[in-house]
Amino acid sequence: MREIHVEPKDYAYVIGPHLEPIATVQPGETVAFFTHDAFCDMLDSNDKVPADIHMPPCPQVGPVRIEGAEPGDTLKIEIISIERVRDWAVSAYRQELGAIVPTNTTRMLSGPIPEKTFIYHFDEATGKYRYNDKLCFDWEPFIGTIGCAHGLNSFMSITPFENGGNMDVPDVKPGNTLYLPVSCPGANFSIGDCHGRQGQGEICGTALEIAAKVTLKFELIKGKTITWPRIESDTEIMCVGAAKPMEDAARIALCELIGWLVELGWDEMEAYQAVSQCNKLYVGSMVNPNYVMVAKIDKEIAYRK
Amino acid sequence: MREIHVEPKDYAYVIGPHLEPIATVQPGETVAFFTHDAFCDMLDSNDKVPADIHMPPCPQVGPVRIEGAEPGDTLKIEIISIERVRDWAVSAYRQELGAIVPTNTTRMLSGPIPEKTFIYHFDEATGKYRYNDKLCFDWEPFIGTIGCAHGLNSFMSITPFENGGNMDVPDVKPGNTLYLPVSCPGANFSIGDCHGRQGQGEICGTALEIAAKVTLKFELIKGKTITWPRIESDTEIMCVGAAKPMEDAARIALCELIGWLVELGWDEMEAYQAVSQCNKLYVGSMVNPNYVMVAKIDKEIAYRK
Amino acid sequence: MREIHVEPKDYAYVIGPHLEPIATVQPGETVAFFTHDAFCDMLDSNDKVPADIHMPPCPQVGPVRIEGAEPGDTLKIEIISIERVRDWAVSAYRQELGAIVPTNTTRMLSGPIPEKTFIYHFDEATGKYRYNDKLCFDWEPFIGTIGCAHGLNSFMSITPFENGGNMDVPDVKPGNTLYLPVSCPGANFSIGDCHGRQGQGEICGTALEIAAKVTLKFELIKGKTITWPRIESDTEIMCVGAAKPMEDAARIALCELIGWLVELGWDEMEAYQAVSQCNKLYVGSMVNPNYVMVAKIDKEIAYRK
Amino acid sequence: MREIHVEPKDYAYVIGPHLEPIATVQPGETVAFFTHDAFCDMLDSNDKVPADIHMPPCPQVGPVRIEGAEPGDTLKIEIISIERVRDWAVSAYRQELGAIVPTNTTRMLSGPIPEKTFIYHFDEATGKYRYNDKLCFDWEPFIGTIGCAHGLNSFMSITPFENGGNMDVPDVKPGNTLYLPVSCPGANFSIGDCHGRQGQGEICGTALEIAAKVTLKFELIKGKTITWPRIESDTEIMCVGAAKPMEDAARIALCELIGWLVELGWDEMEAYQAVSQCNKLYVGSMVNPNYVMVAKIDKEIAYRK
Repeated sequence: MREIHVEPKDYAYVIGPHLEPIATVQPGETVAFFTHDAFCDMLDSNDKVPADIHMPPCPQVGPVRIEGAEPGDTLKIEIISIERVRDWAVSAYRQELGAIVPTNTTRMLSGPIPEKTFIYHFDEATGKYRYNDKLCFDWEPFIGTIGCAHGLNSFMSITPFENGGNMDVPDVKPGNTLYLPVSCPGANFSIGDCHGRQGQGEICGTALEIAAKVTLKFELIKGKTITWPRIESDTEIMCVGAAKPMEDAARIALCELIGWLVELGWDEMEAYQAVSQCNKLYVGSMVNPNYVMVAKIDKEIAYRK
Repeated sequence: MREIHVEPKDYAYVIGPHLEPIATVQPGETVAFFTHDAFCDMLDSNDKVPADIHMPPCPQVGPVRIEGAEPGDTLKIEIISIERVRDWAVSAYRQELGAIVPTNTTRMLSGPIPEKTFIYHFDEATGKYRYNDKLCFDWEPFIGTIGCAHGLNSFMSITPFENGGNMDVPDVKPGNTLYLPVSCPGANFSIGDCHGRQGQGEICGTALEIAAKVTLKFELIKGKTITWPRIESDTEIMCVGAAKPMEDAARIALCELIGWLVELGWDEMEAYQAVSQCNKLYVGSMVNPNYVMVAKIDKEIAYRK
Repeated sequence: MREIHVEPKDYAYVIGPHLEPIATVQPGETVAFFTHDAFCDMLDSNDKVPADIHMPPCPQVGPVRIEGAEPGDTLKIEIISIERVRDWAVSAYRQELGAIVPTNTTRMLSGPIPEKTFIYHFDEATGKYRYNDKLCFDWEPFIGTIGCAHGLNSFMSITPFENGGNMDVPDVKPGNTLYLPVSCPGANFSIGDCHGRQGQGEICGTALEIAAKVTLKFELIKGKTITWPRIESDTEIMCVGAAKPMEDAARIALCELIGWLVELGWDEMEAYQAVSQCNKLYVGSMVNPNYVMVAKIDKEIAYRK
Repeated sequence: MREIHVEPKDYAYVIGPHLEPIATVQPGETVAFFTHDAFCDMLDSNDKVPADIHMPPCPQVGPVRIEGAEPGDTLKIEIISIERVRDWAVSAYRQELGAIVPTNTTRMLSGPIPEKTFIYHFDEATGKYRYNDKLCFDWEPFIGTIGCAHGLNSFMSITPFENGGNMDVPDVKPGNTLYLPVSCPGANFSIGDCHGRQGQGEICGTALEIAAKVTLKFELIKGKTITWPRIESDTEIMCVGAAKPMEDAARIALCELIGWLVELGWDEMEAYQAVSQCNKLYVGSMVNPNYVMVAKIDKEIAYRK
């Protein structure tokens, strides 16, 4: 199986249509990506804080050209596995990052909370990451940042948007399939920022940040157009919306989910009813340039005839 | 066991400190309430629409005085059971109500969607409510509106606020325990608007609206002050926040959950970390005067020493 | 001319339909109200801070019954004058109050800024309020809180809502006319919280808070129904919206202004165009339970035929 | 004086650091730019609607390299004049654009309003743009889109952001001076989308869109770092914030304005007080990817010692 690595000097910090691809992948191909953590693997001690790391956040492996991809296609990505490539993870409080602290966008006169770093060590015996006796949590890995490029915008890789990006959605995990809209020739696919686990909302702004080996199988669905990311598990279909305020992100995810049911043959007003009575609606992340919401419904309901 | 009924002429449509109690309950007492649906039980046919019902929404059984309750106390409510008292439920699309339609607060020039009513019949054989072959869903009952009065405000019963009210949170269900802040003498407890089921967000504005018999056991925790509703299940502790925009509701729920962990002995910065990595954060409802968010965490984590 | 005074023991802190009127006013009557400041006239020294004042905010003179007022009518109020009844005003920073500090609704982990009080003395020679050489500002008085009761809700008097209340809109000033929706029998009119001046947004949460003598002339427009407060000056018509997030308050004000043009004979799509090209749209206040926005347009345009 | 023109084939639709400059300007130089309207000058008849124009919005003249500009500098731009280069302007209703219609970010199930185009002709005799007798408005020109590039993001030119962009702020007008943060080497300055006039908020999504000759004088303030755009008129200083929800845009503008006062020698808590009592706070635009707010205060106050 093919592997894609990048050196620190080649990290991309932007997902966009203008970047030069570092590799080309064929539809049908399975590829392993070696991703770096959101702090460029440099926040490796409880004695350092985020302010010590003078790098942009969220280094990416990419962009990768998907052979034959054109605007209006859909990129289908089976998430085969996420493997640890080191025995530690890091979370940290960074000034101006977080859901319940003043930030660059929710500006306040009151001062920030102090920066603080949590290095978690993975314990093979228990299968848990451990900082101390209380902060000791299960391995539930997922991909924080994964996306195709927008047709015109080039966004910093911390940004979630309609082609994916830094969604920080825990359901983007092994065993599930992700569908992304293709908006530029070649798709300019990008990946990075894997998490050993994360609560819904990623409220302090960082998860258990890990370097990882991520194995993905790519398919290209020609001529199938979607407008926002979709996720499929064995039992559920899910739609992702990213916007501010949070209710607008929810509205996108909900309208997309109803639209998906309509594609499956539902009458729109009945789909609206089914979603109203049966959906889940959770916060993916609320610390990035857009808030991310996920709406989902059981396949058992969605595929009723 | 004591039962509390009200006649239609005695419905309350407001939860507030100034209303005269219709009954008094003793701490320790178990009481059955007979609640009416959000349409005052009058939207009983697919041939009617909400505009035909000329009543305020969300009729309440209450207020009920809790003997000895004073501002600063906490009312503990074990939700023993919710029983059907009729074989049908109703959902409907009402103009200016819903998460993805123009409303009185999210005003638009574009017109509303048409009103429409869905009468679901309960099928004892399958344990499901059925409108048609596709719209056919499990019985998963919970209480839509339950609250104590605010100290000064008297809110229409469709309003979720810091003492509870129309939270429309599916976790307010049999087997769970609800804790409400007491803000006026006697608490002026109120209940109504039970749901046969509902998706997260209650996005069309109505659940499977039912009349019900609700059995609750009340305890009064003297001198224990909480600032927002809390819910406890066998495995989780949960905090509810209600505000707009939705991120502010989430912020309340999150700060409350961190505060609860601090009460349990956690250091605040470690509690912030635990919640960041392990919480769930979902939308209760996004169609009422405030948006309602629920943050929760496993007891196994919360009670670590 | 009739005068309405209340003693501190009779302040109302709520605007609602259930309160017992303290007086009745006839349509056509001119009345002088003696209002108290938002701190109940008790924050009278730079050595005190808001936490020292153990009273609810925004004491009201009211409710006043308007003879003959019924739901669906409009109360027209000419603001004749606002006179100082003392030589000082007070502004203060209060914890959990303000547009750019953590509050009870925009909750943050970071701490509050310190409380601080600014007593301004009025200088008859310059016509300015003076705290020091830099904080020395013109007398530009207006009414902070003025409203009729809602039909069902009883709101704390700090709340702006569809019948008025704590709008904190600087255009509610002498020489202008205010129109309020009547939603309960008798209107239950209420007034308080005058300001010697205030910036748009009232961002620290307090204006130059004054006690005042306010002279108003009341007219009742029977059968004329409006849904939100309207203001008329010699040269402009204005609509007020109150909601959160702020864009929803703006949407209300804008839709109301377009609606007003339609009442004046405009085609709706042309009214939309006129407002798009010619309106002003400013923040009244952004520190109360709802944000308040004002949309306005020149009468010269509005009354074109 | 130097003139910069671009052919339609050379329009830029993005403002970003990666674009190749089309020209270089020296600090101290005065330059005339010939800008195109937001519809690429193609919506030139009441018989066409926006859906007929298959071009991205907001074509730019740029990027222009500012000789010597480096991240951390400030670009000072005196707006000398805006001249009409044709005798008509266009406004239009476009689906999914506007403050009070469903959009791509505020998604709704209800349908859009119909598209409609308004061609206004300029009447030299009256100095007004005229569509019909009622829609006939004064010439009050300003620049809709003007910005430097962000350091990493490349945004579609419809986006307002911390380096400027599509702010749609009517105070960016002849006689005033604009200050923009420089975030990439050479600044990559861009301009387009001039308006013959516009209401606050640009609520239908389009102003009186014009092609124009814009004359600007550039200065580079080396080593002076600002974080958001600033505007200076003869009598006022103003700060611009862009974010969603609208209160976050207001918070940015307000914190920036307080920060400016602190730079001028004010104590922060006194600056907070002065802004609270004396600022104006209006909506620039509420139809672009971010909402734009402007906070301003009189120079007479700001420069007090």
